[in-house]
Amino acid sequence: MDKGTIRREGLVCTRNPQRLYVRELPMKLESQWITGFVDGEGCFHVGINPHTEMTAGYQVLPEFTVVQHKRDIQILHALKDYFGCGVVRTNHGDRMAYRVRSIKDLSQIIIPFFFKHPLQSKKRIDFEKFKSVLSLMNEDVHLHADGIEEIRRIASQMNRGSLR
Amino acid sequence: MDKGTIRREGLVCTRNPQRLYVRELPMKLESQWITGFVDGEGCFHVGINPHTEMTAGYQVLPEFTVVQHKRDIQILHALKDYFGCGVVRTNHGDRMAYRVRSIKDLSQIIIPFFFKHPLQSKKRIDFEKFKSVLSLMNEDVHLHADGIEEIRRIASQMNRGSLR
Repeated sequence: MDKGTIRREGLVCTRNPQRLYVRELPMKLESQWITGFVDGEGCFHVGINPHTEMTAGYQVLPEFTVVQHKRDIQILHALKDYFGCGVVRTNHGDRMAYRVRSIKDLSQIIIPFFFKHPLQSKKRIDFEKFKSVLSLMNEDVHLHADGIEEIRRIASQMNRGSLR
Repeated sequence: MDKGTIRREGLVCTRNPQRLYVRELPMKLESQWITGFVDGEGCFHVGINPHTEMTAGYQVLPEFTVVQHKRDIQILHALKDYFGCGVVRTNHGDRMAYRVRSIKDLSQIIIPFFFKHPLQSKKRIDFEKFKSVLSLMNEDVHLHADGIEEIRRIASQMNRGSLR
């Protein structure tokens, strides 16, 4: 925040060249709005990549993402502010992504949120499988070859679109 | 609703072959969920088509649509139930659309809803232009050539994606 900006009672007041204060209200999201938006735009994904340093030979990478054109980057920052975790990064070209990959943040923040505010679309099925994978990971199941196979089986049923 | 189904206090009870009643809760949407979902998946569009029977030579066709894969058709029906207007139809292939085209329903139901529950994304800009077009139509501006040009100018600035 530079010298020309003052944060006061949740508002950002920007001093413009005419020395007037212009109030810019930060975007404040409601829980049901977030659920509706994620029903449309969100993704729960579990990647399983070869990784020689892991005991089981694979690394399991669960992630929650919301991708938007850069014109709506303020929504991604508002999601980050709401959840208090994750990062906003360039996804591809003009598209930006809000992304949460931390097992702890997914388990303690993201999953409880969508448990409390259930998704209405069939994306809920992906969320349930995602939740199962995180439960297994919190029991360290992903550190053994058998566990990797169990997670791979669940992950293969996610994000299949019209095949569901 | 067939003979095996009873509607009672907002619940649909379906009699299964074992003569047990299975309660299927109808999907109930909240206003903020709808705004979030429409921020992601909705579209406000104004079509202007040549029409020889119209005085001005053109017909103005505003519409609000939400398109989903058929697996989520229950969301489209829930939107129709919530707003009490519009239709659910096949859009293209496996995709279905909830669509409102009636000037009266757009003016008296859809626009007041999104005025009360503002969109958070840049789609709000399309909504504001859509609202302007409907205001002009309610003043019969679209029945004259000059009015068509004014509406065409506004409509040309809508749904331009990254050009905004």
